[in-house]
Amino acid sequence: MTDTRDLDRRFVFHPFSMAQGHEQSGALMMAQSAEGCWITDDSGKRHLDSMAGLWCVNVGYGRERIADALADQARKLSYFHGFSSMATEPAAILAERVIAKAPDGFSKVFFGASGSDANDTQAKIVWYYNNARGLPNKKKIIARDRGYHGVTVLSGGLTGLPGLHAGFDLPLPMIRHVSAPHNIWTRNAEEDDAAFSARLAQELEDLILAEGPDTVAAFIAEPVMGAGGVIVPPEGYFAAMQAVLDRYDVLLIADEVICGFGRLGTWFGSERMGMKPDLMSVAKGITSGYAPLSGVLVGDKVWQVISGEGSAKYGAFGHGYTYTAHPVMAAAALANLDIVEEENLVERAGQMGDYLNDALAKAFADLPIVAETRGKGLMAAVEFARPTRDGWQKFDPGLQVAPRIVRAALQDGVISRALPNGDAVSFSPPFTVTAEEIDLVVSTVRKAAGAVCDALRADDALAPL
Amino acid sequence: MTDTRDLDRRFVFHPFSMAQGHEQSGALMMAQSAEGCWITDDSGKRHLDSMAGLWCVNVGYGRERIADALADQARKLSYFHGFSSMATEPAAILAERVIAKAPDGFSKVFFGASGSDANDTQAKIVWYYNNARGLPNKKKIIARDRGYHGVTVLSGGLTGLPGLHAGFDLPLPMIRHVSAPHNIWTRNAEEDDAAFSARLAQELEDLILAEGPDTVAAFIAEPVMGAGGVIVPPEGYFAAMQAVLDRYDVLLIADEVICGFGRLGTWFGSERMGMKPDLMSVAKGITSGYAPLSGVLVGDKVWQVISGEGSAKYGAFGHGYTYTAHPVMAAAALANLDIVEEENLVERAGQMGDYLNDALAKAFADLPIVAETRGKGLMAAVEFARPTRDGWQKFDPGLQVAPRIVRAALQDGVISRALPNGDAVSFSPPFTVTAEEIDLVVSTVRKAAGAVCDALRADDALAPL
Repeated sequence: MTDTRDLDRRFVFHPFSMAQGHEQSGALMMAQSAEGCWITDDSGKRHLDSMAGLWCVNVGYGRERIADALADQARKLSYFHGFSSMATEPAAILAERVIAKAPDGFSKVFFGASGSDANDTQAKIVWYYNNARGLPNKKKIIARDRGYHGVTVLSGGLTGLPGLHAGFDLPLPMIRHVSAPHNIWTRNAEEDDAAFSARLAQELEDLILAEGPDTVAAFIAEPVMGAGGVIVPPEGYFAAMQAVLDRYDVLLIADEVICGFGRLGTWFGSERMGMKPDLMSVAKGITSGYAPLSGVLVGDKVWQVISGEGSAKYGAFGHGYTYTAHPVMAAAALANLDIVEEENLVERAGQMGDYLNDALAKAFADLPIVAETRGKGLMAAVEFARPTRDGWQKFDPGLQVAPRIVRAALQDGVISRALPNGDAVSFSPPFTVTAEEIDLVVSTVRKAAGAVCDALRADDALAPL
Repeated sequence: MTDTRDLDRRFVFHPFSMAQGHEQSGALMMAQSAEGCWITDDSGKRHLDSMAGLWCVNVGYGRERIADALADQARKLSYFHGFSSMATEPAAILAERVIAKAPDGFSKVFFGASGSDANDTQAKIVWYYNNARGLPNKKKIIARDRGYHGVTVLSGGLTGLPGLHAGFDLPLPMIRHVSAPHNIWTRNAEEDDAAFSARLAQELEDLILAEGPDTVAAFIAEPVMGAGGVIVPPEGYFAAMQAVLDRYDVLLIADEVICGFGRLGTWFGSERMGMKPDLMSVAKGITSGYAPLSGVLVGDKVWQVISGEGSAKYGAFGHGYTYTAHPVMAAAALANLDIVEEENLVERAGQMGDYLNDALAKAFADLPIVAETRGKGLMAAVEFARPTRDGWQKFDPGLQVAPRIVRAALQDGVISRALPNGDAVSFSPPFTVTAEEIDLVVSTVRKAAGAVCDALRADDALAPL
């Protein structure tokens, strides 16, 4: 173990890791340098990163232009805040650029430093909005099973994954969840897209009516779910959900932390998936992960209340981070957006996304433990499950099917990700990924999955049920 | 109005600002470049920043070394995460350096991107700790009036300032507050430090007993309160409070977001103020604000439970940010700590802090509306109030005493800050501040305060009561 690995093992409390296991065994991989889609570890081994870090390094690693922007801005104005109407130029320019790409009706950006804080801010905005309107009981927020919305006490509860709740007393009491539009585990065999959408919209309406519409403030959804399984909703889903929300004066928050800034082949996922949100959260793609920066985009309907009744009732808006509108982070975002625009990376994400999804569909079609390959743009997943006479059954979590596949692929130099709550393996490469790199990802993970399938069969874990 | 000012006005939702007012009038000041303690705005005017941004730019603005570190690391490894035992070198090296400076008994750092997220993480750690110990009812967190602990739904409730609660339904129901150790507004006339400390410790004990000790998990406190008024506790305060916490198995969280990394003349405020915390939150000073980075320092007592019973009961620790342990942010922190160490800035903060506090005491002694000048290290404040026969009375908030003084000083080229919840004006300059710069800050604010005092007298607002 190198010295640095030893420091990591002894002093770093790792996120989403086994606390005891990490302290005993140390890092699975120590990344040392990276260029394009490739990461070199501390042993000199190169890995093709099919996840763009955590769905974020959209322009690829090692961009001089963003490095230079960070340094230039740090030399010029290394920090200043936005409290009490103080301002800096990079944040002002960035806000305009983001709003220009957003759907019509958005006019303001509240900056933060993570998707988690953006969604935490969303809850505060939604409550403030209804307090300002004189609706103090209208506060519940509905999210979805498998949705990923962050890890603060508030946003971790919006997240619909049990592994983020256990031990932490989450979710908070004002949060509810409805079903994810999951093809394998939620859709009934006989349902077409319209019937599936209608049933999920009915579930939402039933919940709102049961809770009382005067108690429900907002519904939050990713256009395509990320960490919950790369779940693409059925055709007509958001239109059906939105009709319910409109009926009961419930705001729609689009969590664009993964989809925003091009991953689905459109600037925002809302556009491609037919959502008409009142509020949007962005993070990852705004800087391609080079710098922690997030934003809450506020639509006019909400802004009018904040600036009108809200200002009159509460005075200054009592919320904000030291690093809200950080000029150095904003400069990194501006350089990142320059790259995205000049290299037409949004369009490219759409094209390479089609290529990736086709390649996965072809490569995994013959593997008996593949329940589905799915995706949209440069987000894709393969769902592994046990075939039975009556359809699919989840593998025993103890079998570690997806983690074993991911570990085997990592051995062969490809980084993919086993998503929580099932056995999906996900892909979300940089937008600069080439067809050859996609082919390598797909063939490597296919080989790993084939080997795990063989091992399962050998262990009798695929015996007919 | 320049174009950039217009973009800011139209598109940026400003933190802690009047939403409507900002959209109508635009920025009070637009910062464009900065060097040392000096900020140049978009009209070319120079301002001496006596607040180091928001208590954070400890090494001063414009440090080439941190700019270079940002760019070098962004070129080498622009991003990678720490999930699933993945690791990067800058975070590992930084964690060891931070722990080496921390009090004995600390062994792990959980990184984030803001003081708010650090304190939000603290709540999750505290709840997890007691769930792992089989104490599911032991969850309440006690904070203090005027304490500042951030703005997430959880941490904004820990913050004890009404302006951060109104409109947002805060604090959450598991949060309690005790009195701030405020010399002017909390201390009784006859109380010496020992009696004042004993009374506040009794208040804490009474609250714990009233709530039930089996329901109280933690107490959080800044060594010296920052935004709540630069409140320095009386001698013996933390020893008295700590004795109560120990009696009832209540953890002590030190919020070192402002004090940490040298502001009081010691590496951590806990050291100077005699706190023995179980957990510590750091942010601002770890990067001098050049990059969003925070940390939760975990003491052995808590770590043993997380890695032991916690790991056994819950598996992977289900918490973490995309930007947890960000290599570029960690590289900025390392360069910042190099500067702090090589230039002996911790020691310097202590020395210049004494100079600042002496200068304030002398300059403001004769002004009849000064209730107190106070501070510790490079944190200081002047509290303005109305003199009466029986002591001090708060000014009518409508008189805007502190904001008027701060605005007048800003006109004269000095940035200070009017703290919420009263009429204190605060100072927290970079550690590199010179005696001449301190003299200029003090004389400029003294002149502004004198003019406001004269205006109040002219308006009959100082007439004897």
